Amino acid sequence: MSITLLEHLKEPQQLKTLDTAQLIRLAEEIRMFLVDSVSKTGGHFGANLGVVELTLALHRVFNSPTDKIVWDVGHQAYVHKLLTGRREGFASLRQFGGMAGFPRRNESVHDQFGVGHASTSISAALGMAVARDIEKKDNHVVAVIGDGALTGGMAMEALNHAGDLGTNLLVILNDNEMSISANVGALSSYLTKLRSDPTYARTKADVEQLLRKLPAIGNRLTNTLERLKDGMRTMVVPGQFFEAFGFRYLGPVDGHDLRALLKTLEDAKQLTGPVLLHLITQKGKGYASAENAPDKFHAWPSQSKGEKKTKSYSQIFGETIRDLARTDNRIVAVSAAMLPGTGLTAFQAEHPNRCFDVGIAEQHATTFCAGLATQGMRPVFAVYSTFLQRAYDQVIHDVSIQNLPVMFGIDRAGLVGADGETHQGAFDISFLRTVPNMTIMMPRNGDELKRMVKTALTIDGPSAVRYPRGDSLVEDNLIEDVQPVPIGRAEVVREGSHVALFALGPMVDLALKAADILFNEHALDAKVINVRFVKPLDKNLVIDTAQVMPLVTIEEAALMGGMGSAILECLVDASVAADVKRLGLPDRFIPHGSPADLLKTVGLTVEGIVQAALSVDHRTNARRQVN
Amino acid sequence: MSITLLEHLKEPQQLKTLDTAQLIRLAEEIRMFLVDSVSKTGGHFGANLGVVELTLALHRVFNSPTDKIVWDVGHQAYVHKLLTGRREGFASLRQFGGMAGFPRRNESVHDQFGVGHASTSISAALGMAVARDIEKKDNHVVAVIGDGALTGGMAMEALNHAGDLGTNLLVILNDNEMSISANVGALSSYLTKLRSDPTYARTKADVEQLLRKLPAIGNRLTNTLERLKDGMRTMVVPGQFFEAFGFRYLGPVDGHDLRALLKTLEDAKQLTGPVLLHLITQKGKGYASAENAPDKFHAWPSQSKGEKKTKSYSQIFGETIRDLARTDNRIVAVSAAMLPGTGLTAFQAEHPNRCFDVGIAEQHATTFCAGLATQGMRPVFAVYSTFLQRAYDQVIHDVSIQNLPVMFGIDRAGLVGADGETHQGAFDISFLRTVPNMTIMMPRNGDELKRMVKTALTIDGPSAVRYPRGDSLVEDNLIEDVQPVPIGRAEVVREGSHVALFALGPMVDLALKAADILFNEHALDAKVINVRFVKPLDKNLVIDTAQVMPLVTIEEAALMGGMGSAILECLVDASVAADVKRLGLPDRFIPHGSPADLLKTVGLTVEGIVQAALSVDHRTNARRQVN
Repeated sequence: MSITLLEHLKEPQQLKTLDTAQLIRLAEEIRMFLVDSVSKTGGHFGANLGVVELTLALHRVFNSPTDKIVWDVGHQAYVHKLLTGRREGFASLRQFGGMAGFPRRNESVHDQFGVGHASTSISAALGMAVARDIEKKDNHVVAVIGDGALTGGMAMEALNHAGDLGTNLLVILNDNEMSISANVGALSSYLTKLRSDPTYARTKADVEQLLRKLPAIGNRLTNTLERLKDGMRTMVVPGQFFEAFGFRYLGPVDGHDLRALLKTLEDAKQLTGPVLLHLITQKGKGYASAENAPDKFHAWPSQSKGEKKTKSYSQIFGETIRDLARTDNRIVAVSAAMLPGTGLTAFQAEHPNRCFDVGIAEQHATTFCAGLATQGMRPVFAVYSTFLQRAYDQVIHDVSIQNLPVMFGIDRAGLVGADGETHQGAFDISFLRTVPNMTIMMPRNGDELKRMVKTALTIDGPSAVRYPRGDSLVEDNLIEDVQPVPIGRAEVVREGSHVALFALGPMVDLALKAADILFNEHALDAKVINVRFVKPLDKNLVIDTAQVMPLVTIEEAALMGGMGSAILECLVDASVAADVKRLGLPDRFIPHGSPADLLKTVGLTVEGIVQAALSVDHRTNARRQVN
Repeated sequence: MSITLLEHLKEPQQLKTLDTAQLIRLAEEIRMFLVDSVSKTGGHFGANLGVVELTLALHRVFNSPTDKIVWDVGHQAYVHKLLTGRREGFASLRQFGGMAGFPRRNESVHDQFGVGHASTSISAALGMAVARDIEKKDNHVVAVIGDGALTGGMAMEALNHAGDLGTNLLVILNDNEMSISANVGALSSYLTKLRSDPTYARTKADVEQLLRKLPAIGNRLTNTLERLKDGMRTMVVPGQFFEAFGFRYLGPVDGHDLRALLKTLEDAKQLTGPVLLHLITQKGKGYASAENAPDKFHAWPSQSKGEKKTKSYSQIFGETIRDLARTDNRIVAVSAAMLPGTGLTAFQAEHPNRCFDVGIAEQHATTFCAGLATQGMRPVFAVYSTFLQRAYDQVIHDVSIQNLPVMFGIDRAGLVGADGETHQGAFDISFLRTVPNMTIMMPRNGDELKRMVKTALTIDGPSAVRYPRGDSLVEDNLIEDVQPVPIGRAEVVREGSHVALFALGPMVDLALKAADILFNEHALDAKVINVRFVKPLDKNLVIDTAQVMPLVTIEEAALMGGMGSAILECLVDASVAADVKRLGLPDRFIPHGSPADLLKTVGLTVEGIVQAALSVDHRTNARRQVN
């Protein structure tokens, strides 16, 4: 099958000229294209196959960019990108300098709101709707949100505000059973109930017929009858949950029935006030038919690279707490809709009663952990670095002020690569370091991660173990044989006398390589320190070292307020004047690209460390000469 | 009326021995005591008068501390404190070293969870309930949450999780029309609907009677009849919103009818699974009768101190954006249930169509602003420093990554006094400084606040103007005559050659006083700098100054990652070795107390600055001698 229609599509206005049959054919072409293209580049896949018809119908019925379409999370916006003139971009999807995997305002006028995290779309769309009202314009605003993202508290905050304002706003609930784990959240069950009952619409007519046939039954029952009619509304409009928020509920509608979609969207467009349209879609829809094009299919997924000898940090983390939980009944694992992503699957399998997936709800997850900790439990919240930003107040207000022993397993700390700005774990050190009572550590490899997890469980207060995306070689030893690390103590991994390299996490290995080069090529003997604890910092080691040699600090984290700054603070508080050169993430957002490319652009390489060490050494000499 | 019963009450178990009449009398005594006591010390008042009966009933029906009672926000826990042996503490309520205004775990075994911010109680209580289940205990867990706090997203995240788990948990919705502004949020209207209909309970019986009288009407309608019965459930149990979350709904019940409360709580105690009990209470209940004790009454409020010649920073902020909005139609003001607290009342009165109170929903507020900004608006979110912690991810993900011109008016930055740990605005500099694209400034007084607000509106990206709680003298000039400040430029307010005092905000005045003392008593000529911009920092001035004299940095904010650290980073990046002494908030949570007392304990005083300046000067000499 050729992609004739798709090839000629340069802007969404062209969809207005296609008839429904052509649109249906275009949907097929889009699926072919996605399977072909994404299998080459990698990227989100199932979510996009699930919204092919919806995206087509949206761009057919509404006029982007005058009408605003806001995608929640945004990993399902590939079809939208295809329909808005970015077909060529798919060759470079999520690659350094290439097209982003999420909507980006600087990429297209059709990308109304940049995104990556969940649950933001209704708030952003409401802002756009209110701006329209203030400016007395009459464009439409549509937010598309998944059932998983709907469990995020801010989505409900936004529903509550939108319903109160009563302005024109269409929220499309893309209800996909696969989008979060089964049984996560009571709302999920509620939606299932709505979904599973196709007879609601017919019932309405039946009820009216029944009511007409009812005999007159006295005064008091007249009142009851009125109530009965009110009750009918609840029955025939099953979305009373959304009506409590002041939304008019439409649906459920089959999200793959293009004709029904076009009709419903046209209808919804005519309504005033906040409207919620409930669609049922299927992630990966049409994937089976794509399989019939086996030459397209076999290339997917492209990322599998043969048998692993290493494990991901996530897996190491998850297996470690699983093993520890065998003998420590206090350990409880908590995830916010990320059980597999954070390596907790193994824990869940073995300790199902002590494993909780709370849905996309990082705020609740954190305070839930605090509540557990008050009762003597040892909760562990495994969460991506940037998603923990969602729970910052809870980390301070509920965990740290009360000095409760909650462990944060901060996954994806540092640069994550293809997901780009919204997912780079750059800020956790800066925002956690300023929080009193918090212990912050980062292991140099998987073996040390196990040691640190064991260590964190001995701390009578909040702790954070941050670790990167990616793999590490790891020893297959018994958890009983794993030794904790001494709290607040750094480790000297190479002695030296000319310059000290204070490295955090996997940067230690780069520092060791740099030390070799410095020694062999520059006759400079570098001391290499595995910092281990950003907080409490090993102040004695920092001070003692700085008194005899200049320092280079190396961290895959924001420089502003990061580990390097902690070292500066330590030195100045101790009145030690020292030359320090800090390497880390600069004060800008880091876009998508391979971690290797990105690290290069910010100078976090062996060569970057060598250069820093040379510069700092020269500077010290220069200063000494001046004095 | 004497407080005989209250005087003898040392622990909540004693309530079990009182009959209902005695409990009702005790309620009266408690009201008398509160009016008397709080009028002397200041503190939250109306909220506590509203929960007198509820608190009595809870401690009568449940067994604290075995049963866990978790208070949301916690400003309504005075009665709880009275009933749990802390009557003497009220003499020192919210004073330095005295009893806290909120529950504190280190104050009593009956304070199960420390609090101060809204919407955390259900999450914490659920954690306690799950811990109970894991340990196979059988105690009860009760969360008490107001209707305002319920609009916070994390409360809904918690409902969703609790309903899914299905464990025993009682959530008491303390529905008080005064607790948030009228008409904030669609849920508020929904609750009003539930509240206003006392006939629901009776209807149930009527409906059953009606159903029995229905004639048989054919096969198809039999099915309809079943649905009708389902519909009934919705009608007779009006809380379908909560049932969608998997909660059993009870109520509404009059929260001041002690007999009804005792009965309902006893009933609720027998139920299994998650239960929501909807109470209707009245803030300030019984205040009128307290008025009949005029000698008690006239002392309240104790805080009024005669006619003001100054204005609060909040008021200056609010009036400034109000004035600017007269000629700038892009300005939109947003508040999260804090319109009066953040000084936006004047703005709302004059620009009601551009003023939005979104309820307790800081996450939504921030992304709503981002959405407004995408459409060319100039949104201003006025928010307390510690409440902005709730929206940290939205500041990064929705505002700063997209470099949208949202202005954050950060109120209560620095020490706030009586509210204690949970409200001290200590961290905003540290957590915002690390965010790319963010501009951060702080004015030294009210006049400069006006200039900075005007400045922020010229910035094409996110900006934060932080200002303290309290008052400032301010000129009553026209907004047209207010000049913006140069972006990224500090101001030298006193020239000097021996030591430089880099002061932020109102600390500038302390620095000037310190400079006088240094000059007159120590023959030290201090340069005083009004830093103005924490980011972008005036690097040239910092570097030039540090090359000729040592520095003291002074900020009412956390030292870790704060303005002082920004100056250290600047110096080391420029390879300038300088002696620096940093003054600011130490790495611990600061408890309640008067701001003056608290500033003294952390050394942020004129004398503290003098000492720091002397120490840094001596150190420089010492180092020069060594070299």
